[in-house]
Amino acid sequence: MRKETNKAQSSFGEKWRKLKEIIKRKRPLIHHITNNVTVNDCANITLNWGALPVMAPGLKESDQMVASASALVLNLGTISVSQLNSMLKAGKKANQLGIPVILDPVGVGATKFRASAGQKLLAEIKFSIIKGNKGEISFLAGKEVKMKGVESIGKYKGVEKSAQLLAAEFNTLVVVSGKSDLIAGENEIRKNDGGDQMLAELVGTGCMLASTLAVFAAAAQSSELSLLESTETALYYYSQAAEKAAAKVKTPAKFKLEFMDQIYLFQHCS
Amino acid sequence: MRKETNKAQSSFGEKWRKLKEIIKRKRPLIHHITNNVTVNDCANITLNWGALPVMAPGLKESDQMVASASALVLNLGTISVSQLNSMLKAGKKANQLGIPVILDPVGVGATKFRASAGQKLLAEIKFSIIKGNKGEISFLAGKEVKMKGVESIGKYKGVEKSAQLLAAEFNTLVVVSGKSDLIAGENEIRKNDGGDQMLAELVGTGCMLASTLAVFAAAAQSSELSLLESTETALYYYSQAAEKAAAKVKTPAKFKLEFMDQIYLFQHCS
Amino acid sequence: MRKETNKAQSSFGEKWRKLKEIIKRKRPLIHHITNNVTVNDCANITLNWGALPVMAPGLKESDQMVASASALVLNLGTISVSQLNSMLKAGKKANQLGIPVILDPVGVGATKFRASAGQKLLAEIKFSIIKGNKGEISFLAGKEVKMKGVESIGKYKGVEKSAQLLAAEFNTLVVVSGKSDLIAGENEIRKNDGGDQMLAELVGTGCMLASTLAVFAAAAQSSELSLLESTETALYYYSQAAEKAAAKVKTPAKFKLEFMDQIYLFQHCS
Repeated sequence: MRKETNKAQSSFGEKWRKLKEIIKRKRPLIHHITNNVTVNDCANITLNWGALPVMAPGLKESDQMVASASALVLNLGTISVSQLNSMLKAGKKANQLGIPVILDPVGVGATKFRASAGQKLLAEIKFSIIKGNKGEISFLAGKEVKMKGVESIGKYKGVEKSAQLLAAEFNTLVVVSGKSDLIAGENEIRKNDGGDQMLAELVGTGCMLASTLAVFAAAAQSSELSLLESTETALYYYSQAAEKAAAKVKTPAKFKLEFMDQIYLFQHCS
Repeated sequence: MRKETNKAQSSFGEKWRKLKEIIKRKRPLIHHITNNVTVNDCANITLNWGALPVMAPGLKESDQMVASASALVLNLGTISVSQLNSMLKAGKKANQLGIPVILDPVGVGATKFRASAGQKLLAEIKFSIIKGNKGEISFLAGKEVKMKGVESIGKYKGVEKSAQLLAAEFNTLVVVSGKSDLIAGENEIRKNDGGDQMLAELVGTGCMLASTLAVFAAAAQSSELSLLESTETALYYYSQAAEKAAAKVKTPAKFKLEFMDQIYLFQHCS
Repeated sequence: MRKETNKAQSSFGEKWRKLKEIIKRKRPLIHHITNNVTVNDCANITLNWGALPVMAPGLKESDQMVASASALVLNLGTISVSQLNSMLKAGKKANQLGIPVILDPVGVGATKFRASAGQKLLAEIKFSIIKGNKGEISFLAGKEVKMKGVESIGKYKGVEKSAQLLAAEFNTLVVVSGKSDLIAGENEIRKNDGGDQMLAELVGTGCMLASTLAVFAAAAQSSELSLLESTETALYYYSQAAEKAAAKVKTPAKFKLEFMDQIYLFQHCS
C-alpha cells in the first residue's frame, strides 16, 4: 500500500496540474518506434494522457517524423536489423534537435542480438530516460542476468546500485519498474510504492509506462519542472490509475479498460 | 447534433437493408494492406459489419489475395518501401479486376516519404474512394498543410473545394472525416453531421472508417445503389454507432467496446 | 450443446489441475512468430493461462529465443519471405532441443505463396500439433479447397479422414477447429462439441487457440499426460471459457473481455 503522506500527494497534484495544462495546450507529438505486440496500447495511452501518438518506423521517414515530435520512444520488443537502423537514425535526429529520447530495452538480456542492439543504441544515442525491469537494467549495467523471454527472473538485490551506475555512465535517468519502482539519477534514488499487481497480469503495461514517461518528459521541457520531478509525477499517476482500476475489477481484460479510462479521466476531468 | 429529417433517416434505412442483405449473402472479403497500430481494429470492424477481413501484406502474395477479394484498403499509417511495393502490386491487380480500392493516406503531409508514397499510389492506381482528414485531403489536392504526425492541425477553410478538385483530378469519391464529414464528387458535395467527439479520443477510428467504406463499396457493386449512396449510408451508420455508444459511456476504452458492438448489432439484429 | 457426461468433465478437471500446477510452478515461455493482426491477443491469452509470452520474429534472434522457450507457435497469418526464414530457423532449433512446435497454417490454401510456405515448413520442421480450420487442414492433406482469405468455405465432408491422413504423414496431432472441433492422431479421433458461435464473431480466436495448445503442450512435457490428453483438455477449457462468456454477453467486443478474463480465472481462482 502507498505510504505517501498527504503532503507528497498534494505536491504531485500541483506538478500534474502544471504538466496537464502544458499537454492540453501544446498537444506534444510522441513518436514511437516500437514492437508490434503492444503498439496499439502505446498509441491509445498517449492519446489518453492528452498527447498525440505517431508511429513511423520506416527507415525512409523515421528521422523526418522526429522534426515535429516532442519526444521519441525506442522499444526493443520485436527488434529487427532494419528497425534498429530506423531507431539509430531517429534517435540521432532527436539528439540534434534536443528532443528527449526514452529507451525501453525490452528483453535486452534474452538474446545476443538484443544485447548488441541495446548496446549500440546506448553508444550512439543520448537517452533522457532508460526504463526497464530489474533484469534489463541490471544487464545494461553490466551484470549477469537471467532473462526468460522479456521477463526478468531472479532476485537482483543490487538493482539500486546498478541503476545508479547506469545513470552515471550514460548521464541519464533510470527507471526500474517492478512491485516497487525506482527512479535513479547519478546521485539520487527515489521510490514509487504505488501501483497494483494487476499491472503484471496484462501485456503491455511496461510499454505503456514508457509512452507515459515520454509524454511527461515532453511536457517537462516547457515547464520549470525537472525531468526527475516530471518522471516521479508520471509514475505516481500511472500507479494511481492502476490502483483505482484494481479497486473496481480483478481480472486483466476488464482491468485494462478501467486503467486506460482512468488516465483519460485524469486529463479530461476537473 | 444531427439535423437529419426522419425522411432522410428512413431513406438510409432502406439502403442499409439492401446492402445488409448483400453482405450477409456474399460475405465480401475485404483485403487490407495497412498499418500495424490499428490492424486488429480494422479486422474486427470488418467482421462486425458482416464481411470477412484479410490482411496479406507480403510482397509475394498481396496481389494474389486480391483475386478473391471484393474490396482493397491501402493505408499509409506505418508505410515502408516494401509495403509500398506490395500496395502497388495489389492495387494494380484490383484495378484489373474491377475491385474497388480505398486509399487512407494517413499522415500524408507529415514527411517527404509519405508524400511521395501517396503521390505514387495516386499516379499508378485508380481509387474508388480517398478518405482522409482535412490536412491529408488538402495536401493531396496540392495545398500547403500543417500536419502534426498523422493529425491535421489548422483551419482548412477551403477543404470543400480541395476535396472536389481532388475528386475531379482522380475521378474518385473523396471523404473528408472530421467533426462534420464531407463526401465530395466532382460535381457534388454532401455532409454528414452525425458522430460524436469520442471518435477523436480513440486511436483507429479513421482506419476503421476506411474499412467500413470498403465493406459498403463492395456491397454496392452487387446492388443498384451508387458508390455515393453506399458511402453516405456507411457514414450515416458509422456515426449512428458512435452516437449510440457515446450515449452510454464517456471514456474511450469503454466507448470502443460499445461502438464496435453497436455495429455488430446493426448487422445481426432485426 | 455440450454432451459430455459428468465423468468426462471430472476427468478433464483432474488433468487441468495437474497442468495448472505445472504452469504455475514453471511459467513456461511460449515463443511466437506470428501475424501482426492478433499478436496482442496471443500474448495476453498466454499470460492469462499463467504462462509467459514472447514474440521475437527477428531473423537474427528467432532461434536464440527458442533456447529459453518451452513451446514455439508458428502462425502464417501475415507471412512474408523474411518471416518464413525466421520460422524455419526457430523451428529447426526447437526440433533440436525437443521443444514442441505448433503450426497455425492461417489461410494456407488462399495464395500460392502461403501454400508453398506451409509446405516448406512441413517439410523442414517436425510439428507436435497442426491446428487449422477445415479448409486449411484439407489443403495440407492434399485436397482441393476453397479458401476465402483465411476462412474456409464449403462443406469438407471428408475432413476427419484428411486430418488423420495429415497426422499420419507428418507424425503429428491435428486439430481441426470449427463448430465441432476434431483432434486426430494417426489411429484415433476425438471430438470437442463445446464452445460457442461467438468465437466465430471475433478476430483472433483461432490464433489464441494455437497459443493455448502451446501452453498445454509445454506443460504436458513435464507431466505424465500425453499430448493428446493435454490437447483435449485445452480444447475443453477453451470451449468452457467461451460458453461461460457467451452466457453473459452476446456481442463480440464485450464477449472478448469475458472470454479472456474467464481463462484468467481458470488459472488464478481455486
